[in-house]
Amino acid sequence: MTDSRSGPAAVTMLPVGTVASARSGLVDDDWGEVEATITLHPPYSERSLLGLAEFSHVEVVFLFHRVDPASVHTGARLPRGNPGWPEVGIFAQRGKDRPNRIGLSTCQLVSVEGTTLTVRGLDAVDGTPVLDIKPYLAEFGPRGPLRQPAWAHELMARYF
Amino acid sequence: MTDSRSGPAAVTMLPVGTVASARSGLVDDDWGEVEATITLHPPYSERSLLGLAEFSHVEVVFLFHRVDPASVHTGARLPRGNPGWPEVGIFAQRGKDRPNRIGLSTCQLVSVEGTTLTVRGLDAVDGTPVLDIKPYLAEFGPRGPLRQPAWAHELMARYF
Repeated sequence: MTDSRSGPAAVTMLPVGTVASARSGLVDDDWGEVEATITLHPPYSERSLLGLAEFSHVEVVFLFHRVDPASVHTGARLPRGNPGWPEVGIFAQRGKDRPNRIGLSTCQLVSVEGTTLTVRGLDAVDGTPVLDIKPYLAEFGPRGPLRQPAWAHELMARYF
Repeated sequence: MTDSRSGPAAVTMLPVGTVASARSGLVDDDWGEVEATITLHPPYSERSLLGLAEFSHVEVVFLFHRVDPASVHTGARLPRGNPGWPEVGIFAQRGKDRPNRIGLSTCQLVSVEGTTLTVRGLDAVDGTPVLDIKPYLAEFGPRGPLRQPAWAHELMARYF
């Protein structure tokens, strides 16, 4: 990934906080009941979270920091390497070895204390850098009927 | 935003595609029926989108590139500057003048052709850099009952 070619300009971000979780290894399933905290870094303060506790859920944008950028996929592959599922493009799956290594999850917000949020169901390991936190608004949910292929339901069967 | 202080390491990203939309100005409302396209940049190819058309919705992570980094809020403010609503932290609202300038929307996927997706309801202006595209999985939606404050419903009344 170089910026010297002609193409889009690189974007630089600084994590806004860090995840602390009892889960430190890369585990595929059973994230639903896992509680974790996100603690903000300076310059963020209690004021940055003012009013957040009135929301039941947050969307957390984070970095899959354990993924080696050299192992990121750009084309198609089998989700989880499972030959029982079809080969699909990296943008048709949510695997972590993805461009820009961005993770995204909707979690239950358990509590807010000072500069620390406690959340339930965040599928990010201990030490994960957090790039953004947004309140979940019902109106930002999907509009119209949902459809997804069978393999995606199967993959998710024990995820949360 | 400097990386010379002690603190989290900076993260560099390269946009994976660009939005083309009839909307080029910063408009608050009525995004629901707006159709836009996202065209991938090299090295992404048709293979990167293989199987995506089987999903009804995608989540698009993008950059609010028109926002001057110097105008990003880190504390609390009135959403849309509206004095009728409470002051809330930047992580308790979805305004664009936010840390790392990350935008996030769930859109209907209309079609996929070559390296171009057509989507409906993407609240991003023409020329917006796209950082990631994920298929929307029902299982990644919010678990448990939703709750959000009245101001957030009012703000969203005419958004989509």
